Amino acid sequence: MQFLNKTMLVLALFLIASCGSAMNQTAADDGNGEDAAAGTEQAAHDQAETESVISAETREKVDGLIAEMTLEEKVGQMTQITLDVLGKGEDVYSSYEPFELDPEMMEKAFRTYQVGSVLNTANNRARTPEFWNELLSEIQGYAIEESGQDIPVIYGLDMIHGASYVDGATLFPQQIGMAATWNPELVRRAGEITAYETRATGVAWTFSPVLDLGVDPRWPRHWETFGEDPYLSEVLGYELVKGYEGEDNDIGNPYQIASCPKHFLGYSHTLSGRDRSPAWIPESQLREYHVPPFEGGGIDAGALTVMLNSGEINGIPFHSSKELITGLLKEEMGFEGFVLTDWQDIIYLYTRHRVAADYKDAVRMAINAGVDMSMVPYDFDFSRYLVELVNEGEVPMDRIDDAVRRILTVKVKMGLFETPYTVLDDYPEFASEAFADASRQTALESITLLKNEDNVLPLDPDISALIAGPAANTMRPLNGGWSYSWQGDLVDEFTEDYLTIYDAFSEKLGEGNVTLYETVRFDHDGAFDDEFVDDFDAFRQKAEDKDVIVLAVGENSYCEGEGDLDDLYLSDYQQKLVRVAAETGKPVVMVLAQGRPRIISKVEPLVPAIVNAYLPSNYGGEALVSLLFGESNFSGRLPYTYPRYPNKLIPYYHKHTENLELEGTPTGTQFYPQYEFGFGLSYSEFEYVSLSTDASSYGVDDIIEVTVEVQNVSDRDGKETVMLFSSQDYASITPPVKRLRDFEKIEIAAGATEEVTFRVPVSKLAFVNDNNEWIVEEGGFVLRVDGLEAPFTVTETQVVF
Amino acid sequence: MQFLNKTMLVLALFLIASCGSAMNQTAADDGNGEDAAAGTEQAAHDQAETESVISAETREKVDGLIAEMTLEEKVGQMTQITLDVLGKGEDVYSSYEPFELDPEMMEKAFRTYQVGSVLNTANNRARTPEFWNELLSEIQGYAIEESGQDIPVIYGLDMIHGASYVDGATLFPQQIGMAATWNPELVRRAGEITAYETRATGVAWTFSPVLDLGVDPRWPRHWETFGEDPYLSEVLGYELVKGYEGEDNDIGNPYQIASCPKHFLGYSHTLSGRDRSPAWIPESQLREYHVPPFEGGGIDAGALTVMLNSGEINGIPFHSSKELITGLLKEEMGFEGFVLTDWQDIIYLYTRHRVAADYKDAVRMAINAGVDMSMVPYDFDFSRYLVELVNEGEVPMDRIDDAVRRILTVKVKMGLFETPYTVLDDYPEFASEAFADASRQTALESITLLKNEDNVLPLDPDISALIAGPAANTMRPLNGGWSYSWQGDLVDEFTEDYLTIYDAFSEKLGEGNVTLYETVRFDHDGAFDDEFVDDFDAFRQKAEDKDVIVLAVGENSYCEGEGDLDDLYLSDYQQKLVRVAAETGKPVVMVLAQGRPRIISKVEPLVPAIVNAYLPSNYGGEALVSLLFGESNFSGRLPYTYPRYPNKLIPYYHKHTENLELEGTPTGTQFYPQYEFGFGLSYSEFEYVSLSTDASSYGVDDIIEVTVEVQNVSDRDGKETVMLFSSQDYASITPPVKRLRDFEKIEIAAGATEEVTFRVPVSKLAFVNDNNEWIVEEGGFVLRVDGLEAPFTVTETQVVF
Repeated sequence: MQFLNKTMLVLALFLIASCGSAMNQTAADDGNGEDAAAGTEQAAHDQAETESVISAETREKVDGLIAEMTLEEKVGQMTQITLDVLGKGEDVYSSYEPFELDPEMMEKAFRTYQVGSVLNTANNRARTPEFWNELLSEIQGYAIEESGQDIPVIYGLDMIHGASYVDGATLFPQQIGMAATWNPELVRRAGEITAYETRATGVAWTFSPVLDLGVDPRWPRHWETFGEDPYLSEVLGYELVKGYEGEDNDIGNPYQIASCPKHFLGYSHTLSGRDRSPAWIPESQLREYHVPPFEGGGIDAGALTVMLNSGEINGIPFHSSKELITGLLKEEMGFEGFVLTDWQDIIYLYTRHRVAADYKDAVRMAINAGVDMSMVPYDFDFSRYLVELVNEGEVPMDRIDDAVRRILTVKVKMGLFETPYTVLDDYPEFASEAFADASRQTALESITLLKNEDNVLPLDPDISALIAGPAANTMRPLNGGWSYSWQGDLVDEFTEDYLTIYDAFSEKLGEGNVTLYETVRFDHDGAFDDEFVDDFDAFRQKAEDKDVIVLAVGENSYCEGEGDLDDLYLSDYQQKLVRVAAETGKPVVMVLAQGRPRIISKVEPLVPAIVNAYLPSNYGGEALVSLLFGESNFSGRLPYTYPRYPNKLIPYYHKHTENLELEGTPTGTQFYPQYEFGFGLSYSEFEYVSLSTDASSYGVDDIIEVTVEVQNVSDRDGKETVMLFSSQDYASITPPVKRLRDFEKIEIAAGATEEVTFRVPVSKLAFVNDNNEWIVEEGGFVLRVDGLEAPFTVTETQVVF
Repeated sequence: MQFLNKTMLVLALFLIASCGSAMNQTAADDGNGEDAAAGTEQAAHDQAETESVISAETREKVDGLIAEMTLEEKVGQMTQITLDVLGKGEDVYSSYEPFELDPEMMEKAFRTYQVGSVLNTANNRARTPEFWNELLSEIQGYAIEESGQDIPVIYGLDMIHGASYVDGATLFPQQIGMAATWNPELVRRAGEITAYETRATGVAWTFSPVLDLGVDPRWPRHWETFGEDPYLSEVLGYELVKGYEGEDNDIGNPYQIASCPKHFLGYSHTLSGRDRSPAWIPESQLREYHVPPFEGGGIDAGALTVMLNSGEINGIPFHSSKELITGLLKEEMGFEGFVLTDWQDIIYLYTRHRVAADYKDAVRMAINAGVDMSMVPYDFDFSRYLVELVNEGEVPMDRIDDAVRRILTVKVKMGLFETPYTVLDDYPEFASEAFADASRQTALESITLLKNEDNVLPLDPDISALIAGPAANTMRPLNGGWSYSWQGDLVDEFTEDYLTIYDAFSEKLGEGNVTLYETVRFDHDGAFDDEFVDDFDAFRQKAEDKDVIVLAVGENSYCEGEGDLDDLYLSDYQQKLVRVAAETGKPVVMVLAQGRPRIISKVEPLVPAIVNAYLPSNYGGEALVSLLFGESNFSGRLPYTYPRYPNKLIPYYHKHTENLELEGTPTGTQFYPQYEFGFGLSYSEFEYVSLSTDASSYGVDDIIEVTVEVQNVSDRDGKETVMLFSSQDYASITPPVKRLRDFEKIEIAAGATEEVTFRVPVSKLAFVNDNNEWIVEEGGFVLRVDGLEAPFTVTETQVVF
């Protein structure tokens, strides 16, 4: 078994979790809590290799169920359909409104095909908690009472940044914003609240978190990730999973839900940047970069469902790869839960990837590769074909039993047999002010100050402002996709009670002091990048009597392939708006509401202040204004490398050969991104005073104690994320320029100096060599914090995992 | 042994090559000449597996030499230094002019270190043939008479598109332009002339051809390739190697030279687009796409020297990869020649790639991996370290003997022992008019017409023209790098006798009818993308009384990393020039002189005529004018996919999943490049009448006879390249959308219909599966020519190589 996240497992084993309300839980890990346990890591590791997370009692119950099931019933458990199939409507793809279950389809699904899982909303729109309560009650009632099988359905929803398919629920900044907080506590709290509000609907399963690396800004799901760094993704993935599931992964607890880390594995790192498309990733690099978030942040955090990569790796569509599903995930990483396809992905083996000759052959491939549940989601052919394949000997019965055992294990652990659904009445804190505060705080700590020339910020509360740009007065680009609908296109219908950026400015300055003239507007009925352009002269006129211009630019909401993009530059019209604004001579504050870093290098020099808001969700407008006026202090830091040019898209952990300064080379061909990974300004000013290690050489089993002193040299209290990077002088595989090894976000009072001590096991400096082993190699290393360096030597070479 | 290019080897075995002057040789293969031999391919294949290309006599001579050599002498043979080391000068990096050999350094190199190879010019500039004659005479004289060893030096030069380091030699369009001709005869002829003119200097070895795929337009060496297609690269690589070496690879013939296919392997397909940087290429894809040009176009064509990829693959710098150098190239592909590093690449294992702890360790790695000769090129430490390493047992003596045997074999085959150098007097055709005609014809057939709205072209000879743009009146952007100097920066100093685009227009229209006002100019003293801008108003005024505006835009010359680029768009100033030109209302002809396809999508709609000239070299201006005025007909076709957007850079053989039309997706996110691979217009108009196969199903050993009828429906004679593509319905690895399988360029008279018959062995439809075997898999296939399709079935699955 690969074992990448010892820290996290140790925490899981050593911390006593609260068994009461999720609301009483505390987020114990701040990325640094492992110190006490570090010495016993190897023991914990050994234990993890043999110990199952499934209790004997659960096993027994599941085995009992399986023993009495027919093949058709088993295959039904492996089948997941979408809600529209069950609704009265013209066809399976949509339903009449108001939504009603269709008795004929209910019978077909649950009595004829014994379907075990349902997902999604109907007609692709958020619903009230009451709707969900009634729906779950009806579906579970039918499945248990009428199907002849007594097995409850497992219902899954894309609750992506809060309970995002629930009208009135508390939405949070998207994962990319969560990552920008560098605050594990806030991420866990977001998970807890999402779990609570999801359970309030009766649903107990979310398809989250995304543990793919946001390593390619072209990719339209970049904002669904925790950014480009494997370690940050692992730490925050762990927090989100524990937030959903509780510290002890008691998903039967009515305040917790089951997580579903996705999309295993390497989904984000494609050749073309296009969604669901081919990736070339050598095994050593797959293990080095893409496995750790899933292992440490997902599997070892206790997740019992995993969704697969819809693309292909090295020519093999992931959904047909036995090597990676069964070999790597189940056998090597010891995943005991069930593996779910993504939307229609078995069919796509035939229609898109073309590795299967027909649908039935695609079913054979996927199930034999190790898929346990098919997100079909529109037909029953999957079930029919799978029954045939078993009868024909093409899929072995023990593969079916294995899949069903995994699925039923989760249903049992979820307590669905005892409590097939929950109801809003038991969730008094749903949409509470405390929850809103948590979201607001997350937005405050995520929004990242990228430029502040001449102290344009903070703004004076007595000014007048012109607010322009396509994100100025709509909640949609603040939320992004997976918000009330798949593409986020219905956001403004559900968010009347929240403040847009313009609203928040009006509230702050008084309506008379704020003028809205977007000038460039998104076409909310078109593709995400369709725009309308108004009159630039009118914009100029309106700016004349204003003290400041705020440009809210970026991207409209999109999701998955519909957000594919060919040109990373900020749109031409929006760049023109920036130019025109700058020409007025007024101070310009450029706010970026965007799912991925759109390139601004041609307009960046024209504006004195730039703020990256990511997708801060419903409290983003408020939070932004609070920060811009200095009521709050900026503490967000980029979780990715912000590129300067469209054809230089490499992460901070690139190789030295990608970063050479050659004589005669045009400016910019060496690595100098617009903003580096981890970058972010503050109203405070921090200076790193010292960095030291407790020795100058270490063995493989040693722990390096690293002490950093950082001073707030300003007169304003602030939060600073101390980031510890390591570099290796040379290695048997070309070493990257640096890697993040630990971090801690701390508050430093004005004028004060704080000391942070990291304890870095030398084994954490291991990398995956050409034999696919995690190895520590002797030689020179350097630890880096900000501009400081602490060199040391490792004295031995050893395969560590 | 992998055996990818049966066609080519069969040709080598079956054609009786002329042993006389290379000038009398005919290029027998037009991509279609294998018909007669197809039946005996398997026999030829079997033979190739066992037969050595080295004669017993040569072996004996080499063994005799080795038997008498000391370790130091052997290591000297493995050492290659650059000419500046031998010249009198301040240091090894430059020499005084006029160049003189430094007796002290000559002694050090050839007597102390017994150096066996020299490369390059001095002070990075082209030299007269007489200079080379004298230099070679002195160096060979010293090496043979004074070194105490009697072994001649092998001298190598980057003769890249003609004898490009020789003042007065005949230069040809760069390889990317050669590929655009789709004419194997012209490519072979270019090789023959280059060989002749190189031998006229006394040198017998060129570091050419480049067989890397031009699959990433960001890569600064894109123009050095034959474009993105493996088959086209293989066919044309074969021709260039045979042009250099002669049909029978008799490199001892005084009209032939030794080739050096480079840069083995996968060099061009990097993550970042940057030169000499990391690539991630899974083995199956490395074999599928990158091996065939080297195998069929290089090794099986008889090349006996190979230069390595300076980057890394899957984390391993190529120069340290025993698996790929010794395992793949030497053992599996059966390469019997010697492997050369690229510039300083052993040192870079230490200083850049950081897989070696020091220089000496880097030497150990590279030599043990299978490197035979180190292009050191500035020091003798390499030799010193290698002697130490052998004495310390770190490098086995049989590895040294193997390397030296390979190197001496080439020296013997080259006839250097009998004729250590040649002299200009024996080469009366040097720089002859016949050679110029060959280059002119290559330029004519390469320049590609991309757009011709409203028949703006051909131009009327009575017009007046404004010629603008940075490529309007300099030979440098017509030549590119590797022209008289590494970066091409000295081109204009050496090319006074040739016509710039402006010159050629003046000659055609009369000086009074042509105005030159570049408006945007390259900074020839700066980086390749530095520009000066003049007065756009002056441009507008000068355009007023003109009938047409010709914009010669594109790129200044560059080479290797100095041409790294972050933004594929044509420069902002040049795009502005196009806009301003279009606003005049005059017809605009946009000529692209460029090493790689710079993106023009924002200005393309503004101009009616667009011509891609690539890097057409010294007859490019003339050829262009001949085409623009209709004296010649266009027949060039793109050897690459011309991208429309900077963030959509995929080749035509992408996968179906990269080419999905999704509902609601912004325009352009599916694959629709600016111009497709193979695209090119003509003054003629061709219609494909029919496409048929001789059967509807085939076994693996069958040959598919495909017949195409194509008609010239215009009143102008013209040449058309008939391209045959295949698609496979489904396969065990996701199949690409299509692959080029054969092509033939034919002349079709006005109104006439021609029939082309291709004979495609079914085995040619094999692909590399996940077990890295070349396999034909049963199922449905389609052959495609232009818009026509011929479906058929293959009835069996079989591993074919």
